[in-house]
Amino acid sequence: RQLHYSALMLFMSVSMRSMASKTPVGFVGLGNMGSPMAKNLLKNGYPVIATDVFPESCKELQETGAQVVDSPAEVAEKADRIITMLPSSPNVKEVYTGPNGILKKVKKGTLLIDSSTIDPAVSKEMAIAAEKMGAVFMDAPVSGGVGAANMAKLTFMVGGVEEEYHAAQELLTCMGANVVYCGQVGTGQAAKICNNMLLAIGMIGTAETMNLGIRLGLDPKLLAKILNMSSGRCWSSDTYNPVPGVMEGVPSANNYQGGFGTTLMAKDLGLAQTTATNTKTPIPLGSLAHQIFRVMCSRGYANKDFSSVFQFLREEEGQ
Amino acid sequence: RQLHYSALMLFMSVSMRSMASKTPVGFVGLGNMGSPMAKNLLKNGYPVIATDVFPESCKELQETGAQVVDSPAEVAEKADRIITMLPSSPNVKEVYTGPNGILKKVKKGTLLIDSSTIDPAVSKEMAIAAEKMGAVFMDAPVSGGVGAANMAKLTFMVGGVEEEYHAAQELLTCMGANVVYCGQVGTGQAAKICNNMLLAIGMIGTAETMNLGIRLGLDPKLLAKILNMSSGRCWSSDTYNPVPGVMEGVPSANNYQGGFGTTLMAKDLGLAQTTATNTKTPIPLGSLAHQIFRVMCSRGYANKDFSSVFQFLREEEGQ
Amino acid sequence: RQLHYSALMLFMSVSMRSMASKTPVGFVGLGNMGSPMAKNLLKNGYPVIATDVFPESCKELQETGAQVVDSPAEVAEKADRIITMLPSSPNVKEVYTGPNGILKKVKKGTLLIDSSTIDPAVSKEMAIAAEKMGAVFMDAPVSGGVGAANMAKLTFMVGGVEEEYHAAQELLTCMGANVVYCGQVGTGQAAKICNNMLLAIGMIGTAETMNLGIRLGLDPKLLAKILNMSSGRCWSSDTYNPVPGVMEGVPSANNYQGGFGTTLMAKDLGLAQTTATNTKTPIPLGSLAHQIFRVMCSRGYANKDFSSVFQFLREEEGQ
Amino acid sequence: RQLHYSALMLFMSVSMRSMASKTPVGFVGLGNMGSPMAKNLLKNGYPVIATDVFPESCKELQETGAQVVDSPAEVAEKADRIITMLPSSPNVKEVYTGPNGILKKVKKGTLLIDSSTIDPAVSKEMAIAAEKMGAVFMDAPVSGGVGAANMAKLTFMVGGVEEEYHAAQELLTCMGANVVYCGQVGTGQAAKICNNMLLAIGMIGTAETMNLGIRLGLDPKLLAKILNMSSGRCWSSDTYNPVPGVMEGVPSANNYQGGFGTTLMAKDLGLAQTTATNTKTPIPLGSLAHQIFRVMCSRGYANKDFSSVFQFLREEEGQ
Repeated sequence: RQLHYSALMLFMSVSMRSMASKTPVGFVGLGNMGSPMAKNLLKNGYPVIATDVFPESCKELQETGAQVVDSPAEVAEKADRIITMLPSSPNVKEVYTGPNGILKKVKKGTLLIDSSTIDPAVSKEMAIAAEKMGAVFMDAPVSGGVGAANMAKLTFMVGGVEEEYHAAQELLTCMGANVVYCGQVGTGQAAKICNNMLLAIGMIGTAETMNLGIRLGLDPKLLAKILNMSSGRCWSSDTYNPVPGVMEGVPSANNYQGGFGTTLMAKDLGLAQTTATNTKTPIPLGSLAHQIFRVMCSRGYANKDFSSVFQFLREEEGQ
Repeated sequence: RQLHYSALMLFMSVSMRSMASKTPVGFVGLGNMGSPMAKNLLKNGYPVIATDVFPESCKELQETGAQVVDSPAEVAEKADRIITMLPSSPNVKEVYTGPNGILKKVKKGTLLIDSSTIDPAVSKEMAIAAEKMGAVFMDAPVSGGVGAANMAKLTFMVGGVEEEYHAAQELLTCMGANVVYCGQVGTGQAAKICNNMLLAIGMIGTAETMNLGIRLGLDPKLLAKILNMSSGRCWSSDTYNPVPGVMEGVPSANNYQGGFGTTLMAKDLGLAQTTATNTKTPIPLGSLAHQIFRVMCSRGYANKDFSSVFQFLREEEGQ
Repeated sequence: RQLHYSALMLFMSVSMRSMASKTPVGFVGLGNMGSPMAKNLLKNGYPVIATDVFPESCKELQETGAQVVDSPAEVAEKADRIITMLPSSPNVKEVYTGPNGILKKVKKGTLLIDSSTIDPAVSKEMAIAAEKMGAVFMDAPVSGGVGAANMAKLTFMVGGVEEEYHAAQELLTCMGANVVYCGQVGTGQAAKICNNMLLAIGMIGTAETMNLGIRLGLDPKLLAKILNMSSGRCWSSDTYNPVPGVMEGVPSANNYQGGFGTTLMAKDLGLAQTTATNTKTPIPLGSLAHQIFRVMCSRGYANKDFSSVFQFLREEEGQ
Repeated sequence: RQLHYSALMLFMSVSMRSMASKTPVGFVGLGNMGSPMAKNLLKNGYPVIATDVFPESCKELQETGAQVVDSPAEVAEKADRIITMLPSSPNVKEVYTGPNGILKKVKKGTLLIDSSTIDPAVSKEMAIAAEKMGAVFMDAPVSGGVGAANMAKLTFMVGGVEEEYHAAQELLTCMGANVVYCGQVGTGQAAKICNNMLLAIGMIGTAETMNLGIRLGLDPKLLAKILNMSSGRCWSSDTYNPVPGVMEGVPSANNYQGGFGTTLMAKDLGLAQTTATNTKTPIPLGSLAHQIFRVMCSRGYANKDFSSVFQFLREEEGQ
């Protein structure tokens, strides 16, 4: 479906939005990621009007200076720029289109930025629903974990109408180091899903390759060096090597603690799988990578960094 | 099995080898790769004593100044440094241990360098057989194609006793730009097989990912740029992108002509598969990559560059 | 979510439904499958009140004696037993919960039977929505194609409250040879999806195995015979062998015409994939089977019987 | 390579072999399978002349009445019908062509039957080597485990020249219930490898399918029943169901004890992989099945029955 809102009407709506940069920003979703993101807005001088289903999360942010309200609808009454950061597609649907959702009370011209990682088809649905209310919806999922969120070093991949990109960028740069415009609504999600799928494939591939090389008598550091100067080079081999002893400062050097959990990677691959199924796109390696991380979740690796696939694949027979 | 040859005896044998650098070098296997390699030795002032099963190949090299003889055994009689460049394991076995093979006439202390890409287990067998005759066998497979062979820009990955590495290096640098010592006999093959397996996985992964992103509405150049600044980055995304229009000077910009043929990649993945099976190493993605390139060979992609997997996976239903 | 409708209220609703067996039956969806199914109800003496988005389909059924109305809502006004047969989940949602949908006008106690093959999660949603209106929803997907639909030889896999199963069975036996009760709502879909996933795996497995055996020198008929008396036996090897010349009366004997199209199998595997992703169930082979049929759809096999995977995998290099 | 031995010469050699049925039979390889097989020959009145590398195995058979000698060569001096039952290809090469191997002393016209499960390419090599000595080599791998060996209930799949099949059959029927002629040398191995590959695919497919169905709310017994009356039916679903509680008398009913160990299945899939690689045959599911059983061997399932793949795939997140 095309978005029908004409450029003119959009311009008019936008002109109704408060242009002064330090008017309040709404924030829905104060979890591990959302909470530090909201704090970074506060640090940058933006008043924040926030809500979350967990009262403790609200209370913590309140103590940092945010105004807490009872529902996404109430946030929408009080702010014309709103950021949402939620765990999954159903939460996003609820927060936007549920009985106390943002769209129940949203003001014309409001800018809605969703930083959740969800199915791009849901982003498009939300954009259409928002447009009907005269608001503008953009998807802006992040890469980078809790650490990057704390230090305002996230990368945002942004999809939505280009005219609104600069308005979104103003807020996102308070919370991240890189903001990339990807195209129409949903392409932010698409970019994130694509990157993580290729990352997953590269990581399992690196783990298999390092394991095979070691068994064939190669020293792991030397093998990594050879790969990294050759056509096998990838981020997983040269920046985040999964073999203990090859690099320092990566999860493989710390018993696969920290980093990006296998269960989160499995979730993102589930999104890749679903979008691929819906668009009839074959992803043989992406699909198998999904299955491998899914099995790992069942075998005790759910909360280890996803580079622990090296450990999963290598244990010796009889041990 | 350990190689039992003592360092002392090795030293003595080696001292019997002619040390003057411009004594003749033997060369067996004058195909698309071997022929330009031998010519580069001639260019560097080495007399070359060569043989091949195809008389035309011999004749062509003879016209460039090489001495042609009738069999590998005869090469071994006349040269104490011999390079072999052959299509597959059975050819290597025949050339070394067959009735007219090198080992029938090899002189003590001869340095044997095999640049074929074969099963490392066969390299080890040859090394043991050579050692029994008092000769030294090293594996030194190459990366880089016919163009790199012509321009002496190959990369050699070398396995074998470290004491001999410098002697090998002297010759290999005439034919290549990089020479890497990998460890004991067979590790040159191991390094090459490992690199190409990870390359194959990265290429298919990149093709799937780019295809999925395009279907989700992303511009391919923009998607490549995002991947290359993120954790999805790999050689296939940043140096050899398989999507037409993303990069210049790569096979995808030229209808997948030139480059590294699918059938050659399938062969290398067959070696990866066999070594993994023999060492009981799980390689789920490597194995699936092997199958995909194998199917492509049956579907008309055998002689296209292996990055044509993008084309193989993307064609639309009904077209 | 549990279905909260109490057994008592259910009983009361049901008693309001006309018990005389030859009162009208509603039918929504008169495609290749729905049309012969509706005709079989007519043949069994049931008045049929039908609708479809395509006027020609309606007209054809009208000529066979059905009453045609304008919308699913109107069908619901006039019949208290309704069967739906639709292509996919979004159509089912529209027909039940859309602005002119069944649930807009459904009478209390109406029995709703959906024979579409869709995501069981959507079946559950529809059941909950129906329950709110005092109606009963059952899923009853079929196996068997157009031929079986014509001859009333379909198999129905039925999910829903057990008390209603006999009422459903009365109608389904007019259209099918086997009716199997599977459990709560959605389990009919689950059973169909599971069967087709295992079928897909068995078919590709049989194709690979027969191809490998033939290349190793085995006569295909003899190999099929050996498999069928051994532990490799499966429906694809003993009833629907994919190798031309092994059996008569199957699509492989007729250039893969007829039978069950690759594109339909890819659709069902897409459902399997989605339910597996949503329930975090690893299905490595099912997932790869999905990808293989998806690639086949892109390579010209979309409308051939799915056993043509034998042909897809076997063509020789260079042909 | 064709076998060049002419029918006439073959007839002459064969006529030199002792035709009286109760002349001695040689037996090499007295392991878990070979020992009961040799005993069954003794029970049927055949004098047995045996050898093995393990003295205890020899001693045990000696006590049952066999004559034990020191080497395969010595067996060949004393018997003109010899059966071999060995763990893998290298053992077969050693026993036939090694320094004390059968072919060092084999008499013209001797019938050599190898019941090991090995690469069919090695069977062909042995046949050519045997033919040079005027002997006849057949491959006759078995299906059925130690129990079937004890009860003379094995199935033999036999490859080799058809004229010799009846002579082989005479002996094999003492040890097995079914003897199937498969064609030229190597086809016995091919048939066994093919059957076990399809079995492996069917088993993993059944495990995935049952697991998915259970998670979707189906009762496992009911699901098995539905599959078994539908197109998903296979030996693993109807005879050897991997889900505890569905069937009695199978390994899944006994904590996956007994049956056919995962490590043995992984070995057979390794042979399938190698023959497929060598014949350039794509086996995507067979290859993935190989990888899955290989990973299971590393994760503690090596000695459980291969149907334990159900358990491997199903364990819940967080358990």
